[in-house]
Amino acid sequence: MKNLYNVGVLGATGAVGTELLTLLLERNFPVDRLQLLASERSVGKVTPFGTLEAIHPDQFVGLDFVFGCTGSDLAQQWQAAIVGAGAVFIDNSSAFRLVAGVPLVVPEVNGADATQHKGIIANPNCSTILMALALWPLHQVRPIRRVVAATYQAASGAGQAAMHELQTQTAQVLRGEPAQPEVFPYPVAFNLFLHNSPMTAVGYCEEELKMLHETRKIFHLPELAVSATCVRVPVLRAHAESLNIEFYEPFPVEQARVQLAQAAGVRLVEDWSRNYFPMPLEASGQDDVLVGRIRQDLSCPNALELWLAGDQIRKGAALNAVQIAEILR
Amino acid sequence: MKNLYNVGVLGATGAVGTELLTLLLERNFPVDRLQLLASERSVGKVTPFGTLEAIHPDQFVGLDFVFGCTGSDLAQQWQAAIVGAGAVFIDNSSAFRLVAGVPLVVPEVNGADATQHKGIIANPNCSTILMALALWPLHQVRPIRRVVAATYQAASGAGQAAMHELQTQTAQVLRGEPAQPEVFPYPVAFNLFLHNSPMTAVGYCEEELKMLHETRKIFHLPELAVSATCVRVPVLRAHAESLNIEFYEPFPVEQARVQLAQAAGVRLVEDWSRNYFPMPLEASGQDDVLVGRIRQDLSCPNALELWLAGDQIRKGAALNAVQIAEILR
Repeated sequence: MKNLYNVGVLGATGAVGTELLTLLLERNFPVDRLQLLASERSVGKVTPFGTLEAIHPDQFVGLDFVFGCTGSDLAQQWQAAIVGAGAVFIDNSSAFRLVAGVPLVVPEVNGADATQHKGIIANPNCSTILMALALWPLHQVRPIRRVVAATYQAASGAGQAAMHELQTQTAQVLRGEPAQPEVFPYPVAFNLFLHNSPMTAVGYCEEELKMLHETRKIFHLPELAVSATCVRVPVLRAHAESLNIEFYEPFPVEQARVQLAQAAGVRLVEDWSRNYFPMPLEASGQDDVLVGRIRQDLSCPNALELWLAGDQIRKGAALNAVQIAEILR
Repeated sequence: MKNLYNVGVLGATGAVGTELLTLLLERNFPVDRLQLLASERSVGKVTPFGTLEAIHPDQFVGLDFVFGCTGSDLAQQWQAAIVGAGAVFIDNSSAFRLVAGVPLVVPEVNGADATQHKGIIANPNCSTILMALALWPLHQVRPIRRVVAATYQAASGAGQAAMHELQTQTAQVLRGEPAQPEVFPYPVAFNLFLHNSPMTAVGYCEEELKMLHETRKIFHLPELAVSATCVRVPVLRAHAESLNIEFYEPFPVEQARVQLAQAAGVRLVEDWSRNYFPMPLEASGQDDVLVGRIRQDLSCPNALELWLAGDQIRKGAALNAVQIAEILR
């Protein structure tokens, strides 16, 4: 264990990169040298954390950790140089998540997998992380057979430009002007639409299949059945999810509540007397995923239902990545 | 069959009442005398359809139909007078929906039930109507066993004041001011929360149980299993729903598509190549419920999934009521 670490951040100006830098500071991550790297158009930009430099293989030399906060293209392009330089590449993109031998880690669930890395550790999809945190404590008591999920995903999942579009477009519509979608394919102001990640041949978009395949990998449970419907809603930065969870046998709802109340990374939020349950606005900026409204499914004796909200940028991305690095310190 | 009908509207100034009057005109409903009735505070108000009068038992005399567009209290209070006067009371409130002997009608599903009325016909809950239209054509081919539903419900379901609150509160938040909830219990601007109808002992709110019990009654299917999670989203006037539909045996997805394409009250909206599926913004003002993204559930061989959006005020309330009257003409 070293006392101080040299840390690189690839894509330091995006929504996730910015949050990640804040989190390193907040969590007193022992940083010696901080290398902020970005694509050409951001080079030279001055931030409170330093000046952005162009990505060059030499800059990875001597780094202990590189956090990838870019899309898959840049992650693919630079992974060999990062790993070759001896740094651990903790990547937020989807590039390596399902690659055999690359750990896909939610620290509260399968943190030990991180220690098996061969240079790259993948950070799961945001909706997957939030769901995994709520499912895992239940799965420890009684194995889960099948999950039917419906998501309510914030604009932040599509980046800063999408958050900005939600705000400016909403202002336009309130002024009586037509919505002018640029980042999203359809109007997002006072509207919602199915997640626009590429559609696959099985009728599920990629975002939805991530919630299936990534959860299977994180849980080491290749038989787990998950059907997710992913929906973009006019919310800024926290996702919500409605989960119907079927077990192989009945799961007493009070026991589920106790499990979730004790679970790491989860905060139980439910006041049944005033219909108070997790809300995106209250989950924003929080580390924990808010879980509540745990109930027996009236339509199936072996199923429970719950509702959650979690900060998409934070636990859904940046915080999870920093926690992975903390495991390896 | 008469040539012209005398029609009363109870609660003519609300979101549903206003839409209902527009629909009577649009659909050339043969109205002779139109009696607009409202509670004290609206009496004397002049509308394009006439002047609002105070409710008094005498005013129901000679009417053929009275449309109830108020809450349950007023519906309960005046039902005896309406029925006693010989008018058919088509009521939008939840007061009589589950009362034995009162038909609960979605014309495309169980229109014939309307003719069995004893003076009152109940109009179902908005989310129930939209779901029923999508389920019924499938149920004709293979019986449905269980439905897991997640809703994305517009502000309109809580009335005109709620729609106004969504707009004004959003403008406040965009100006950097705090959200000030008045109609809804929690902020609705850029936020969402579970439906705030009263919570019941089984952990489902009343809105969610309506989707169970009303669908059972409309379908004459007391064994049908439905688990609904109802969520209020920052959308103005059309609801969306994600439905997971389990049959007793597999249902070929292409056959489901054909059934829904032919179904009354349904418009198939799906362009898989561009991720184009039903959206609340496009469902607003439409008579049909938009249905699409029909797919085989990857997690269950006997289940299909689909997504719908429908105008909450129109087919979810006012249009359905007018269609019921049209059956009885």
